[in-house]
Amino acid sequence: MKPRLPEPTLRRLPWYLAYVKMLRNSEEYVSSTRISRDLGVDAARIAKDLSFLGVKGKTRMGYNIAELECALTGFLDFTSSHRAVVIGAGSLGGALMHDSGLAQYGLEIVAGFDVNPSLTGTTVCGIPIYDVSRLQEVRTQTDARIAILTVPYELSQQVADEAVAAGYNALWNFTPVRIAVPDNVVIVNTSIYAHLALIYNRINSSDET
Amino acid sequence: MKPRLPEPTLRRLPWYLAYVKMLRNSEEYVSSTRISRDLGVDAARIAKDLSFLGVKGKTRMGYNIAELECALTGFLDFTSSHRAVVIGAGSLGGALMHDSGLAQYGLEIVAGFDVNPSLTGTTVCGIPIYDVSRLQEVRTQTDARIAILTVPYELSQQVADEAVAAGYNALWNFTPVRIAVPDNVVIVNTSIYAHLALIYNRINSSDET
Repeated sequence: MKPRLPEPTLRRLPWYLAYVKMLRNSEEYVSSTRISRDLGVDAARIAKDLSFLGVKGKTRMGYNIAELECALTGFLDFTSSHRAVVIGAGSLGGALMHDSGLAQYGLEIVAGFDVNPSLTGTTVCGIPIYDVSRLQEVRTQTDARIAILTVPYELSQQVADEAVAAGYNALWNFTPVRIAVPDNVVIVNTSIYAHLALIYNRINSSDET
Repeated sequence: MKPRLPEPTLRRLPWYLAYVKMLRNSEEYVSSTRISRDLGVDAARIAKDLSFLGVKGKTRMGYNIAELECALTGFLDFTSSHRAVVIGAGSLGGALMHDSGLAQYGLEIVAGFDVNPSLTGTTVCGIPIYDVSRLQEVRTQTDARIAILTVPYELSQQVADEAVAAGYNALWNFTPVRIAVPDNVVIVNTSIYAHLALIYNRINSSDET
């Protein structure tokens, strides 16, 4: 079992991992001052974040890069396999099934679901697409715990309810809808459309200056 | 020109839009109290968010749904076309080019770039892939302003620098690297891997309870 880390810390850990991977071939130690300068994160915050992983720097040396990489990789759990299904095998869902890069971060997509009979029974990159009525059966067969939601927004809450009822205990929500789930279900939102809104607004408002 | 909105407000606007689209066929007005209850956002915050768009509710009636939808759609600018290029036409980059859903939110991907000669000269879903040395030439030809970064992490900063030098003034960063850009360049991070880390940690730590 792992400690439940604050979300901002979890968001920074992949930065540290990518950073030490870039240094590992040329150096043995890195100071929090230098990490701070290169990543634009406060040095005290870095020390706090890394203390959650049980990693401590050495006086006048800093962090051992190999040790730090090992701790981050182990903690982030990108090397384990985490089985997931995609609900909504349309445009974005299909794109995620095409993204073999997710597997490098431990996400193994084992099935897709849709209501469209022209999709069910087919495969995308070798991943079978089932009718959404089979959510529970496939969960039991595959032991997948994560359901990725890429359905049209009108169906988001309904499909989330179905996934929870079928026993998936983590939802990765790519729809623009604010979904309600029971307390014991994990929900993480990746708001691609909110990020587009942010880009468009910043481009337009930066034109002013 | 549009006002520069706070990021948390911009992140909530797509929720409101999806919400009013679901109500529009059955109702004419919605109160901030009800939006608050359904979306789990404080009512005063909703009123503040919507006031940025110049939308005000009517006493005892609430917000006119059609007017609210129109204001949100107009503000979020999902109906204009925003040209973008994808740098790194591998797994994730290719997946984004497959996602025709982005076009529904105003993002028009006009070109891809890669260094791999087996990819350059080909097309993905009709989108041409060029060698990365042609970033500036293609920007001038297409007037694309947004560069989507889906390169391997070791190349993130270097490719970002090249994109900025080529005149792209907004970067949408999908790599796990913290990228530095000049103040006049917009950068928005979509940290898919950080979100995976969050899901994995929450699943493992929720097992404790």
